[in-house]
Parts: sequence; structure tokens; C-alpha cells
Amino acid sequence: MLQSKLFYKTKKLAPKEATAISHKLLYRGDFIDQLGSGIYSFLPLGWMVHQNISNIIRQEMSALGGQEVFLPAMHPRSVWQKSDRWDKMKPPLFKLKDSHKKDFALGSTHEEVISQLASSRVASYKDLPFALFQIQSKFRNEIRYTGGLLRTREFIMKDLYSFHADQADFEKYYEKVAKAYFKIFKRCGLKVLRVKASGEGFTNDFTDEFQAITPIGEDSIIYCEKCGFAKNKEIFEYNDGDKCPECKSLLKKERGIEVGNIFPLGDKYSKSFDLKFKDELGKEKFVIMASYGIGVGRLISTIVEVHNDDKGIIWPKEVAPFLVHIVPVEINDNKVEKTAKKLYDNGQEKIKRVIYDDRRNVSTGEKFAESDLLGIPFKIIISKKTLEKDSVEIEQRDGKKSQLIKIKDAMNFNFYV
Amino acid sequence: MLQSKLFYKTKKLAPKEATAISHKLLYRGDFIDQLGSGIYSFLPLGWMVHQNISNIIRQEMSALGGQEVFLPAMHPRSVWQKSDRWDKMKPPLFKLKDSHKKDFALGSTHEEVISQLASSRVASYKDLPFALFQIQSKFRNEIRYTGGLLRTREFIMKDLYSFHADQADFEKYYEKVAKAYFKIFKRCGLKVLRVKASGEGFTNDFTDEFQAITPIGEDSIIYCEKCGFAKNKEIFEYNDGDKCPECKSLLKKERGIEVGNIFPLGDKYSKSFDLKFKDELGKEKFVIMASYGIGVGRLISTIVEVHNDDKGIIWPKEVAPFLVHIVPVEINDNKVEKTAKKLYDNGQEKIKRVIYDDRRNVSTGEKFAESDLLGIPFKIIISKKTLEKDSVEIEQRDGKKSQLIKIKDAMNFNFYV
Repeated sequence: MLQSKLFYKTKKLAPKEATAISHKLLYRGDFIDQLGSGIYSFLPLGWMVHQNISNIIRQEMSALGGQEVFLPAMHPRSVWQKSDRWDKMKPPLFKLKDSHKKDFALGSTHEEVISQLASSRVASYKDLPFALFQIQSKFRNEIRYTGGLLRTREFIMKDLYSFHADQADFEKYYEKVAKAYFKIFKRCGLKVLRVKASGEGFTNDFTDEFQAITPIGEDSIIYCEKCGFAKNKEIFEYNDGDKCPECKSLLKKERGIEVGNIFPLGDKYSKSFDLKFKDELGKEKFVIMASYGIGVGRLISTIVEVHNDDKGIIWPKEVAPFLVHIVPVEINDNKVEKTAKKLYDNGQEKIKRVIYDDRRNVSTGEKFAESDLLGIPFKIIISKKTLEKDSVEIEQRDGKKSQLIKIKDAMNFNFYV
Repeated sequence: MLQSKLFYKTKKLAPKEATAISHKLLYRGDFIDQLGSGIYSFLPLGWMVHQNISNIIRQEMSALGGQEVFLPAMHPRSVWQKSDRWDKMKPPLFKLKDSHKKDFALGSTHEEVISQLASSRVASYKDLPFALFQIQSKFRNEIRYTGGLLRTREFIMKDLYSFHADQADFEKYYEKVAKAYFKIFKRCGLKVLRVKASGEGFTNDFTDEFQAITPIGEDSIIYCEKCGFAKNKEIFEYNDGDKCPECKSLLKKERGIEVGNIFPLGDKYSKSFDLKFKDELGKEKFVIMASYGIGVGRLISTIVEVHNDDKGIIWPKEVAPFLVHIVPVEINDNKVEKTAKKLYDNGQEKIKRVIYDDRRNVSTGEKFAESDLLGIPFKIIISKKTLEKDSVEIEQRDGKKSQLIKIKDAMNFNFYV
């Protein structure tokens, strides 16, 4: 991408109401634009990050045998009445009427829709197990919405639903998804804790939350670094100095952002939607279900909360809108510009996610500051001085030392090490 | 993909209310599931087709310099009041209130949101031109919704918006988009006419519709095969036997489905949202805009309307959920199964979009009938008889002759010729 063509305007100041660092930086880098309270547009840079994350999720869901679907946002009242959640959801459902005065809700989750869909397609144990997922917009009628993308009223979520003949099969799959979640968050540059929490109306069982530890988090997590014990404070009474019931080490309490959750649903929705199958002996049984969510926007914010410095964002490599930023220091020098252009053409082929700062009327200081704010993992800096050595400088955003490298080797550099 | 794992159930019968052939076939092949009137879920097969088309569109939009964004579905009342369309949209907007009793609309289009967004990012002629697009859900409060995906109340649309300093630049880009549209529809297997039509409240100018000629279309198109003259009947008075005003050939009248449209918007939205720039002389001017839509679901239906026979769908190659269907005739024969499996492994690497019918308890007749209903362009048939000749049979869905080909050459076959 030529930087002169990119649709973005960085800002010196964050909005007054912004307190979260991720909100400030995503705004200042022009990744997002606020349309209303808790409602955001993704601009080209933000959407690139969003799509990179969606693709990571898609890969890991497919590796789990998940098949992608796309379910509607508008749900007839009837499906939410079947599960008895029309009036009980928290936060409440957004509701509306059509021209015929019929009631609809905007989906805040899709257990209802997918259970109904599955019920006409499952007949025998041979139809099980299976797992369906989507990456799709959800709507939650929150009263408070703060922190930029951390808590919004409209957001894109990956939701996976799995369907099993029995508890054992469900438990096996549940653990597989948990592993895939750790993998996804790792690829997104996050260390997370798997934390037991309450079911929040989705289930009566405890659920698993994946919590990224950061001071801005809304949840309090009690955990043990030694044995992996971790519970949300809402289900665990804790006083300073308490020891872990499992290994007797000292417990820690930190704030966390919930970046993912997995819910055992048992037969709650199967019963509401008559989702039954015949087992090997011809006996009718209810399907055992689970659901597994990741909010992509909140994940983006969390990554920024964890990966930033006073200059701006430091995107993990797989997530970054561009991996490499080509910055010619003296663009008006013929040889500098020619080399930069050549590297850009070459980089587009080999690395794809390359942006070339081709702007003539912007100072070098400003160019570097913008690159740092946008958080691009690598700069390739080309100047008269580097060219004297037939080289360019490769500088890493996360503060590791920069290095001179021969021009001909620049695009063969292993950016992923 | 292993067919035994694919989430789908084909149906012998279409729903009673279905009249459009595309509705019947997409339902029978389990590409879609109806959640409510005019509201559909995309099941795995349908979503594969949807994503293939989205990717074609994405490629062609990027080739036009379009940058992808993602705008919210929920719009505050204020943006629709600025353009004076809050009460005037046809079909009407879906409206709802949040917990604070504030009014929102579900976007049926995004001129308002994108104009507001652009207005704080455009200052100078140097910021122009640019083009933004998204592939995102729209909501239209239609009173009638029929024909499966042909006319729905929630649907995914590609909408591109372009922004220009003057009329000449706009016109140049407008023609480039028209060319890209022809390319998109060609890749989707459709011949379309570019037809002049009325602005439908988007603009006072005439607009361009891209119409696929098929008897089920809602529009009447008057056109000349010789000179390219084509108008929607709504703006052209016509009687049988009339001649083309431009070349004096006999005009034809046919029914068409509008699969795409392009609207010159002039400065209508720029004025509403104060979207101005300073030209080279420092003079303030309003930005000239245009918008360009393609409804992906309607495009899917139209493709099926045009490409089907009495056995089912005949997907164009780029659009098909799978390009190749591996069907072993005698799967219980060890050598047949081994060959099929090997071809499948090989095909996954080389062709990617391959499905292998690994089901043991389904008759060959049923397997072939299903493959035809689902519309997969190529079958690779493996039987004891073909193996005697060290070969497999490659059969094309669109009725072209089948051919024997050596096993070792099967996956090097040029499926795209």
C-alpha cells in the first residue's frame, strides 16, 4: 500500500472521555471512528487488524472441524420465547417491530437460532458430533459502554457451537477448544489465564473465561502462579494473604479482561428446541451442547492494552495491519527513492503486508512518529548514508536493536523470527 | 472436506410457498435455512458460495483502489435526519430505541455514515480522490419478501463509495467501476445489461442498473441487441414493435433481476454532512460522491436462476462451494477406496475446494443425484471398471462429455479450461 493513498488521519490528541490506553491509541491512529455511544466504524487500518484476527480464528476453528455459517442478526420473538430468554437476557435484547407489527430482537448471541436450525438436521447418533461457527455482528443493549472497543453495543464476535451425543464426547471437545483458544491468543500476542466463572444465565454450570491480565480489566481474578488455579472473584471468596486450596501457595489477585469464554450448555437449549437424536439402540436422547465466544473488537483493544509504549501501539506480527514499513529518509534523493520503490515492489510480492511511505511533504521525524503510533513491527529505513554501504536499516518496533542489511537481502530477511 | 462430516441435509421437496427455482434449489441443497419471513441463515454450503463471491468482489474492488472498512448496522437518528431520510426511505428503515430511549435505525444503506466519517478526514484536494467499500449486513423493512434470497429483509451487500474533487474525475472512476462490475458478474457466470433507470431517492440523476435477464426478474428492461441501448421500463415508454431511438433496430423487452447498481450522488450528501475540501486555489468546494452496490445473496439466487437444470444447480467454477467431487462408486472395494482417498489427499493440496463422498451406506445413484443437486462442477468417479484401465472418470456437471483419465494425471487436470 502506498501511504499517500491510505485513508487515515492520525490525531495528536485522544478524545476527552477516553481513559483506556487502547481507546486513545486506536483513535489517534485512526483505526476506528465513533458513530454513536458504544458504536464504532472500523476504518481501513482497523479493519486490516480485524481481518487478520478473524483469519487466525477461522484457521483454528477449521482445525477443530468447525464449519462456518452466517446466521441472521434479526431474530423473531418466537425463538427467544422458546428458551424463555426474551425478557431475561442481561444486558437486555434490543427489540424492534417490522411493518406488520411483529416483534424481533437483534441477536446478542445465537444459541436459540442455531439450536432450532440443528433440530431439523439431527436425527441419529450418526449425525453427531459437529461444530458450527460464525464471525458475525452481535448487539447488546448495555447501559454503560466505555473504553472504546472494550465494551460496545454492536460488535463482531466469533461464536462456535458444538453438538454431542454424550457428556464424555462433549468434555473431550471442550478441552480441544480450550487448547485452540490458547493458541489463538498466543498468535495474537496475549498470555491468558483460563479462569472458572459463573454461567451468567447461559448455563447453571461454571464456565471458563480466558482472561488477559491488565490493570484496566473489569474482572477480578484470583489465581495461583504455581498450579494454574484461577477463579473469577464473583465465585470465590478471597482475602489478601489467602492460600490456594489446591497447592497451598499464596494466591494473587489481578484485574483481567475477558477475551474469550466457553460455556457448557448441557441439554438446556436442546430441550427448548426439541433437539433430539436416536442412539445406537434407538433410544431418543437430547443433544449435549456448548458455546464458545471471542469478541474480536475487545480482543483488538486488549492486544493494544498489553502492547504499547509512550510512542504508540506495538502490534504483534500476525495481527499488525502491515508487517513492514518502508520509510525513505530523503525521498527527494533520486537513488533513495528508486531503492525504496524497488524494495516496495519486491516486498509486495514476497511479504504482501507492506506499506511504503511515499509522501514528499512530511518530515522524517513525523514519518517515524506516525509509524510508531500505528505500531508497524518493522521499519526498513533507506537513506543516503545507508546506501553508501549498499544497505538499508531494519528497525524493530518493539525496541530490539536495529541492524544494517544489504539491499539485496532486505526482502529475504526473516521477519517472523 | 469429507462429505460424511459436512453439515447439510438435502431435501426431496421444496417449501410450498417457493416459486422461484433458485429458492427451491438453494433450499433443497441445504445452502440456506429460513429463520423468519425474508430472513435466512447461510449454512456451510451456502456460506462457501457467499465467501467465494465476496472474495471475487473484494479482489475487483481492491483492483479499483477501494479500501475495505466495516461500518455499524445501528445508526443514531441524527445522521438520517441530516440527510432528511429518517422518514423518507423506501422501503422504510427498521427503527428501535436503546435503554436510554434514544432512536436508532438499522442501516439499509450507508451514504450517511460514510459521508459523516469522510467529512472529518477530507480537507484538501490532496485528500481526493478515494474509495471505500464494505461487505456488510443491511436491513430493509420490506412489506413483501419473496423468492428466497431474491428479496430479503436482512442481507449482506457490498457497498462502495467514491469521493472526487470534480465531475470529470467522478465520471472517469464511475466508468472504471462499471467495467469492474461486468468483470465480477462474468466471473460469477452472468451476462448482464447495463440499464439506465431512475434514482429511487438516492439521486435525481438517472442511475445504472446491472440487470441479468431471466423470466423471474421483477424489472422490465427495454433494450437493443445491436447498439447497447437499455432502459428500465420505469423511465421509458414502450410499445411492442418500437424501434431503438439510437440505431433504429427493433427493441426487445425482457424481465431482469437487478444484481448491481451504481448511483451518481453529486453533492447531495456532501452538502448534508458539510463534506468540503479546498482546491488548488484555496477555494472551498463540495466533494462529488457516488455509491455502488451489489447484494451478494441476490447475486447467488440469480446465478442459480440462470444456471440450473432438472437435476439441480450448475455452479460456475469460481462460485461453486467445491470445484471437484470425488465419488467412489464401490467404496467397499479396497482398491477403489484407497485410490479415492489418495486422490482426495492430493486434491486438497492442489485444488483445495474438493469434497470426497466417503459415505458407505448411500447408493451410487443417490450420491450422483446429490452431487448434481449441489451443483459441483466436476465429478471424479472411481470404480473397479475405471481402475482396470488405471484410470478415473472426470465428468463435468454442465453436460459436457465425460472422459477417462489416468489416475496419476487426475489432479493435474486443468479444471479451469
